[in-house]
Amino acid sequence: MTTRLDFRSDTLTVPSKTMRARMADAEVGDDYYREDPTIRALEEYAAELLGKEAALFVLSGTMGNLVSIRAQVPHGSATIVSSTSHIHINETGHLAAVCGLTSHPLPTPDGRYPLELLNTFAPVQASNQRPSVLNPTLKLICVENTHNGEGGRCLDVDYLTELRSFASARGLVFHMDGARFFNAAVALSRKPSDLANPVDSVTVCLSKGLGAPGGSIVAGSRAFVEEARHWRQMVGGGMRQAGVLAAAGLMALRENIDDLAIDHANAKRLANGLKEMGLDVNTAAVETNIVMAYVPDEFGDPRAFHSRLADAGVLALSPKGKRLRFVTHRDLSTADVETALERIHKITRI
Amino acid sequence: MTTRLDFRSDTLTVPSKTMRARMADAEVGDDYYREDPTIRALEEYAAELLGKEAALFVLSGTMGNLVSIRAQVPHGSATIVSSTSHIHINETGHLAAVCGLTSHPLPTPDGRYPLELLNTFAPVQASNQRPSVLNPTLKLICVENTHNGEGGRCLDVDYLTELRSFASARGLVFHMDGARFFNAAVALSRKPSDLANPVDSVTVCLSKGLGAPGGSIVAGSRAFVEEARHWRQMVGGGMRQAGVLAAAGLMALRENIDDLAIDHANAKRLANGLKEMGLDVNTAAVETNIVMAYVPDEFGDPRAFHSRLADAGVLALSPKGKRLRFVTHRDLSTADVETALERIHKITRI
Amino acid sequence: MTTRLDFRSDTLTVPSKTMRARMADAEVGDDYYREDPTIRALEEYAAELLGKEAALFVLSGTMGNLVSIRAQVPHGSATIVSSTSHIHINETGHLAAVCGLTSHPLPTPDGRYPLELLNTFAPVQASNQRPSVLNPTLKLICVENTHNGEGGRCLDVDYLTELRSFASARGLVFHMDGARFFNAAVALSRKPSDLANPVDSVTVCLSKGLGAPGGSIVAGSRAFVEEARHWRQMVGGGMRQAGVLAAAGLMALRENIDDLAIDHANAKRLANGLKEMGLDVNTAAVETNIVMAYVPDEFGDPRAFHSRLADAGVLALSPKGKRLRFVTHRDLSTADVETALERIHKITRI
Amino acid sequence: MTTRLDFRSDTLTVPSKTMRARMADAEVGDDYYREDPTIRALEEYAAELLGKEAALFVLSGTMGNLVSIRAQVPHGSATIVSSTSHIHINETGHLAAVCGLTSHPLPTPDGRYPLELLNTFAPVQASNQRPSVLNPTLKLICVENTHNGEGGRCLDVDYLTELRSFASARGLVFHMDGARFFNAAVALSRKPSDLANPVDSVTVCLSKGLGAPGGSIVAGSRAFVEEARHWRQMVGGGMRQAGVLAAAGLMALRENIDDLAIDHANAKRLANGLKEMGLDVNTAAVETNIVMAYVPDEFGDPRAFHSRLADAGVLALSPKGKRLRFVTHRDLSTADVETALERIHKITRI
Repeated sequence: MTTRLDFRSDTLTVPSKTMRARMADAEVGDDYYREDPTIRALEEYAAELLGKEAALFVLSGTMGNLVSIRAQVPHGSATIVSSTSHIHINETGHLAAVCGLTSHPLPTPDGRYPLELLNTFAPVQASNQRPSVLNPTLKLICVENTHNGEGGRCLDVDYLTELRSFASARGLVFHMDGARFFNAAVALSRKPSDLANPVDSVTVCLSKGLGAPGGSIVAGSRAFVEEARHWRQMVGGGMRQAGVLAAAGLMALRENIDDLAIDHANAKRLANGLKEMGLDVNTAAVETNIVMAYVPDEFGDPRAFHSRLADAGVLALSPKGKRLRFVTHRDLSTADVETALERIHKITRI
Repeated sequence: MTTRLDFRSDTLTVPSKTMRARMADAEVGDDYYREDPTIRALEEYAAELLGKEAALFVLSGTMGNLVSIRAQVPHGSATIVSSTSHIHINETGHLAAVCGLTSHPLPTPDGRYPLELLNTFAPVQASNQRPSVLNPTLKLICVENTHNGEGGRCLDVDYLTELRSFASARGLVFHMDGARFFNAAVALSRKPSDLANPVDSVTVCLSKGLGAPGGSIVAGSRAFVEEARHWRQMVGGGMRQAGVLAAAGLMALRENIDDLAIDHANAKRLANGLKEMGLDVNTAAVETNIVMAYVPDEFGDPRAFHSRLADAGVLALSPKGKRLRFVTHRDLSTADVETALERIHKITRI
Repeated sequence: MTTRLDFRSDTLTVPSKTMRARMADAEVGDDYYREDPTIRALEEYAAELLGKEAALFVLSGTMGNLVSIRAQVPHGSATIVSSTSHIHINETGHLAAVCGLTSHPLPTPDGRYPLELLNTFAPVQASNQRPSVLNPTLKLICVENTHNGEGGRCLDVDYLTELRSFASARGLVFHMDGARFFNAAVALSRKPSDLANPVDSVTVCLSKGLGAPGGSIVAGSRAFVEEARHWRQMVGGGMRQAGVLAAAGLMALRENIDDLAIDHANAKRLANGLKEMGLDVNTAAVETNIVMAYVPDEFGDPRAFHSRLADAGVLALSPKGKRLRFVTHRDLSTADVETALERIHKITRI
Repeated sequence: MTTRLDFRSDTLTVPSKTMRARMADAEVGDDYYREDPTIRALEEYAAELLGKEAALFVLSGTMGNLVSIRAQVPHGSATIVSSTSHIHINETGHLAAVCGLTSHPLPTPDGRYPLELLNTFAPVQASNQRPSVLNPTLKLICVENTHNGEGGRCLDVDYLTELRSFASARGLVFHMDGARFFNAAVALSRKPSDLANPVDSVTVCLSKGLGAPGGSIVAGSRAFVEEARHWRQMVGGGMRQAGVLAAAGLMALRENIDDLAIDHANAKRLANGLKEMGLDVNTAAVETNIVMAYVPDEFGDPRAFHSRLADAGVLALSPKGKRLRFVTHRDLSTADVETALERIHKITRI
């Protein structure tokens, strides 16, 4: 029987034996009383890695984004979001339903807001100008780094620094959804703390490419983290002996970040291979571990093509229009990528 | 001294002497107990005019939209809105902050969602397909008729009927913001009830071109109106002896609708005149009482041009980029339009 | 036929001929542009009367309370409310549904929180104590003056000053629902500004005993009022030519306050009369225009007794248990009270 | 050195070696795709145990309560809660801030609402009576079983059945916070499914006395669970390879429930011992694993007494007034209880 090679998402990674052993051996306590030493160690390690005063362990990236924003932005105000970002389209509407925020989705080709567009949308107000009562007050700008919906593109320090200036000139909070933050850091060869420096708050995931079974970190100022802890409790994210999970996260941060470079090389190999077979792939845009491949008309209906791939043991995410997403990750080796390409090749020749 | 000719908005109309007399003579009671006969008369008249089972008197169009949507759509779901609509950009964010709705703003050139775009955005779900937990549930589509932000364009019965089908096939509530609903009815020569027929709920304003000092109506099924009454109370819209206002609204509906045709003719005259002087105006798009005129580069900075107009006694809305908005209304006669054109002509010649 | 004498509520007062004439003659403009001179005059007059920097005209007391609290207190925090107060039980839940506030209802016999109870419920926190993440942050205390649900009891300046200290020591906003604020001022012979001085924000009604057909005022600091204006717009409370209503409110404030003393005398007369006939009335507690009378068992079922009163042309509010509420107001003369007592006497003798 | 005997809470239990081994060996997958076999096994086992159609794994009891209520009750309505319940006072206000619910806290001596009080508070409405627009619509009643704030009292099947009738007659959803649900089942010698039968939804915790490091279950109808899954995602409670946690939960449910009887016996022993030493304890009220002991005046300031206990190696929860809470759990043996009593005895003799 054919082994299934699963490129649907890097969320599919399972904890390694070593990681499970760390979890089994973790020292734990009741985190409500701040008595879980492993959670504390993880939070301290993450804060230092990200160059922030403090950090908080949360169950997921969605929870990290939710509590970061609820902690910093008044209910009933407004935010700029990328129209293709996870926070706008894939977090079940918490920005509106829990944070009461009006979202202004702007396009982000290449993962970036065009700066002219930002300035047109939100010009600096003259200091003597009374804000209109007709509009919710703009208080936030969010970015996603890497930007999943735009194919894993990276936002570099220069661009983030420009957004920091934009935000500061308008009194906005600047939040980064770093679901794949370390992919960006590795691809750009930047220290995590340099990349997190321009933002007020950042969420980073410990699962996905880093291999932990769950958990994310939010980081920022000490006051912010205490406030985020309050809202984490409100949504039921308070934890007890979650040191068992934190142990996995600590290992992920300490030992697995560098391995992301392998995933990136694998993604480039996959992208080139798919292009050679006739799929429409912008290989130059493959900066990290995500490959967006468009099914050309001669390969037939994208859904049928996706099924044929699955039958051959190569799983991609269900197509969006003609677009298939492939994600490389630590449970897929370089050899697996070659095997996948051979399998796909058989299909595309037909 | 020059008389000020105020084209900023039709919201500026003031009640006539006759209307004030009606207000002074209105029979009133405590509407909380449903004992204000004038409010009841207004609600009954409006329901019949709009071809709906029942109607509710509210303070403003914004309140009408808010209670209509809060009454029909679960908090935490999602809506399609026009990206340039009043409800999306000019109602202080109540869709998110009070209704908890995630808004999906789509473009509406000519005031209309392109139907292909709607279908791509929200395809009919296969009945066996489980909705994704990642997305707030789509429950609503809103239109604005006439569409102020797109220059007062009208949505006709055929188009609304197509949207009705779109909504019904997806289980969506269909709401119409009819801030200038009667302008559309007059311009299209359709009975108000025909135009309101495709929607579940409609808000219509009694002020603006109809001349009442305030007040709007929401109309729909009897059950809907009772539910809207509940939410009207919650936002502090419950009334006491507001028959004094309702008397103005009743007169507006009974006697002032036909006069809107004059405003429309005046708008066309103004549009043609402005175009002749060199402003960039799409005269074919002037379907009702709104004229969008773009200031050409040779006339200099739009803000300065706007100020020169004001100095000459012609007020337009503050420019948005190069665009000036002029609105005709019952307090501006055909002669006033000619006077305004003469004044503008002097400026543009320089 | 018997004239109906309606003691259900002072909300039933209808505008007098003079008031209607003022409304008919009011100078108006578009208040969105702050161009309605009558609204501006009302807001300035009210601010001065209440000794606050600024004031805002709103449609109702409920709206006044809602925007006052939404403007000052973060969504998701907590408030102390009287368990029998209008804001807690009769405002359709906006504290939770719009303001996101957890309410802690405390008993208020005589209209007042016992100070010991307050201190037990919310002791001053030691400055080094971290607030528990388990509790929403206490940010607000509300009072109602006079307190309708407790029979129109007044809160005097001394008591309010004690609450001010309580609030300040805990960093709380202090809001007063003054639905019948001027009844308290008249009964206590205090200047309105003295009575409003201890609170951060106050809502006062222009209808009820003062006779306007609707409308309330919120007052406080200038910054507060600008913020309240923002939230008023969000709930659809923005107005156009509402000077017609404001004219009534201005007359109510300028000319009708002193008349409340007559209502108070009438309430005392009514209370004494009812007691003489055998109803259970705490006449000492009748401080303003509200009389709470308990139907004794020998008079039979309270609902049946209430109906017999109605048949005899005397309307009281529908009974709550054995309690009937009678409210005196400017549309009921001293002679009307005597007539009512005669009618009731006939019933109670049977 | 003295071993610390920690009676602060049963949340302090740490996973046993066996439990950790189960976690290390758990088969996992991505639960977003419903591919984690251990989570599925836990949910199926829990559903059957509780006699409900379906169950959902959530991070905490707070999250379980939040998503249960958000899934079933319209935002903006009202609920009856116990004034001393966890959901009302210790869940950071999510009922108001996320669910938009107005809470009506009623007293629950012995953990139970007096039925007469419920009927007075919420009489059955006549079918022809229009609900008042002044009140948020009552839609929910919550209970806590066992009731922590009232000393771990149990609600038996008969009482729950009476509440079921109350709820059904008024169209209310009936939710049970079963943070210590299995303590009640063991103490009452009832099958879990019998105890869960009267409610629409129930949350049960896997940590606390059962010893898992975290996690709770919500159970109810299949449709309810799918809806709860949606809101779980919104608050960031969606999981990936959380089978590592679920494995602990599955062991807790399969193997640890019966052990709760030991905790109950230990609590009785502790209660009797404390009473003998002069603390004020209602030993008859010790039905499960919670002992509420009041510090008599002769023992001095409760906070100081609490500190002396801590110095002697016996930890109780920080006092609330004069009340200390002791909780027995699986990490405290019968011998530990005797040791604790000896240590306390030394203090109380002084």
